Amino acid sequence: MENKQMLMIPGPTPVPESVLLAMAKHPIGHRSGDFSKVIAELTENLKWLHQTSGDVLMLTASGTGAMEAGIINFLSPGDRVLVGDNGKFGERWGKVAKAFGLNAEIIKAEWGKPLDPEVFKAKLAEDKEKTIKAVIVTHSETSTGVLNDLEAINKAVKEHGEALIIVDAVTSLGAFNIPIDEWGLDVVGSGSQKGYMIPPGLAFVSVSQKAWKAYETAKIPRFYLDLGKYKKATDENSSPFTPPINLMYGLQAALQMMRREGLESIFARHLRLTAATRAGMKALGLPLFAPDHAASTAITAVAPVGVDAEKIRSTLRKQFDIAVAGGQDHLKGKIFRIGHLGFASERDVLTVIAAIEATLIELGYDGVTAGAGVAAAAGVFAAG
Amino acid sequence: MENKQMLMIPGPTPVPESVLLAMAKHPIGHRSGDFSKVIAELTENLKWLHQTSGDVLMLTASGTGAMEAGIINFLSPGDRVLVGDNGKFGERWGKVAKAFGLNAEIIKAEWGKPLDPEVFKAKLAEDKEKTIKAVIVTHSETSTGVLNDLEAINKAVKEHGEALIIVDAVTSLGAFNIPIDEWGLDVVGSGSQKGYMIPPGLAFVSVSQKAWKAYETAKIPRFYLDLGKYKKATDENSSPFTPPINLMYGLQAALQMMRREGLESIFARHLRLTAATRAGMKALGLPLFAPDHAASTAITAVAPVGVDAEKIRSTLRKQFDIAVAGGQDHLKGKIFRIGHLGFASERDVLTVIAAIEATLIELGYDGVTAGAGVAAAAGVFAAG
Repeated sequence: MENKQMLMIPGPTPVPESVLLAMAKHPIGHRSGDFSKVIAELTENLKWLHQTSGDVLMLTASGTGAMEAGIINFLSPGDRVLVGDNGKFGERWGKVAKAFGLNAEIIKAEWGKPLDPEVFKAKLAEDKEKTIKAVIVTHSETSTGVLNDLEAINKAVKEHGEALIIVDAVTSLGAFNIPIDEWGLDVVGSGSQKGYMIPPGLAFVSVSQKAWKAYETAKIPRFYLDLGKYKKATDENSSPFTPPINLMYGLQAALQMMRREGLESIFARHLRLTAATRAGMKALGLPLFAPDHAASTAITAVAPVGVDAEKIRSTLRKQFDIAVAGGQDHLKGKIFRIGHLGFASERDVLTVIAAIEATLIELGYDGVTAGAGVAAAAGVFAAG
Repeated sequence: MENKQMLMIPGPTPVPESVLLAMAKHPIGHRSGDFSKVIAELTENLKWLHQTSGDVLMLTASGTGAMEAGIINFLSPGDRVLVGDNGKFGERWGKVAKAFGLNAEIIKAEWGKPLDPEVFKAKLAEDKEKTIKAVIVTHSETSTGVLNDLEAINKAVKEHGEALIIVDAVTSLGAFNIPIDEWGLDVVGSGSQKGYMIPPGLAFVSVSQKAWKAYETAKIPRFYLDLGKYKKATDENSSPFTPPINLMYGLQAALQMMRREGLESIFARHLRLTAATRAGMKALGLPLFAPDHAASTAITAVAPVGVDAEKIRSTLRKQFDIAVAGGQDHLKGKIFRIGHLGFASERDVLTVIAAIEATLIELGYDGVTAGAGVAAAAGVFAAG
């Protein structure tokens, strides 16, 4: 059957019909007074979502573009930075740092395990001369479903006092509570096709006062991704370059929906979907790739034993029209990843668990009890 | 009345309904086989539109992002480049060149006048040591409606033999014949909200073999805009970073429409709309800002005498629901700009001329003959 696909990958995520239809409106001029009003509304609602009174800037870019902007605007070639790397995205920020001539110390953890905040703490405590200019951390590591302990790492950065904390929140912004002002996070990057419930093409960077101070002396060359230009324009409800007007119409509808749901409800929903997904997988005898204490609320990675993860994935796709993501790089065939962020409901989680059950039975997976996965998830939902 | 606006600015341009509805489709995974097919089709059709068998790469960016990518991927800090500057965009590429440490020689012409190819020719002919690494030229200068003589400037570059030619074709690609392979243009940047008939958010860069050769030794740092990553992915019908899926659905519909119309018809239509617009303005006694021999086929800038251009613009907007663009920087109030590129028809041009006539009569503009503008445009259309 055509056009029956259900999207449960970690981005793009499902998009509400109201957002899709908002995007189908005819564009108006981005320098018009009417569009300035749209930008003003978006900026206000983005600050609400980011829990900040600081700046939240919109870029026409992918999440990687946002993170690159978040790095190059506040540092100079040769600057010492610590980069957490426990998955494909952490690894990427290390590459970005090196591409721009930063002196990057990579702090690794095995893929599937969280970064150890104590390692950051020790490095930062040792740095009496304050040579560390920034700590770059991926919050929810999309490639493994691990949620790093941002709060603990950030505390170590705050004790250091000088270094900026630059956060990849691409799959956690809107899916997990990140009180930017309360924690004092300096730079937080994210992308539209995740918790925002809209298609890809828009990226976001929040910037603290402390980061703007660093901006003044930062020497990595930049133009299109020069955040100073975005701040100046945003302060005037404008954009430095032609913005993706129709995606912004979509964002307008999505942020209005999110405000109606409320931040607490959104975060609670993601926690509930995560708990139910994990309970369902465990009940089916499927090992989870990330430990419970470091579980992303955006994505659950599952590491089946004795069966190629790609086989499960292709059956889900062909027979049940559900798209889940595969493993990346060396994890291909070893894990599959269920996205449950953004416009994702309890019904979606029940559905994907039911389809995984049916798939395992079809593939003759050892020890699977029919109905056990859905029952476990239903139990989580019943408990509230 | 609400929602009755007619868009006649130089971007965003009007978007066909089929494109808007294509964009409202639910996204699918960008790493899926089905989406690879979409990328393959887009790449083939983009090569057709660009008249090249070389690479045409898609970026999530504005046109400025495409141009920055076109500059930083092929040059190293300190490289000598010539930059044509006769308007806001030429001026911008000079700023980009300087931001990345290039040794940029700015070749100016007055805003409203075309660049003089002889100046480029002389500079290039003098350069016996081949120190000039690139010539950066804006083809259609959106801020003034001037079409620079790209063919003549390119001939001088080809006689030099070493320098790359890097072209801003943001408002000319799809609106004017640019035979990339035949002329040997090395790098050509453009943006979706212009001749492509889709909303902003996608940008394009075509790259010649000679430019790829320069890429190998180019040292300006880059990551998100590293075109080598885009080439590698495009060769596999993929993308290096999450692409703007829904805009690409729109592009798919738009390129299919363009193929049905045919390149020759598209270019002839733009020439016809330009001739009719200019004839209409002249018949109304409105001076044109760019001379006939250097008239952009994307946009006509009009410089009314004795009345503020913003007054004409605001009457067009308030009374007739037509958006035309104003002048930028020191041209604010001095000119208004009519966009007639992309999804623009003869009817659109008749409409805007009729509304300008009505506006001039209302404002008591000296020497306007009612009906003269529409009559002149109709004459152009009747002549074919």
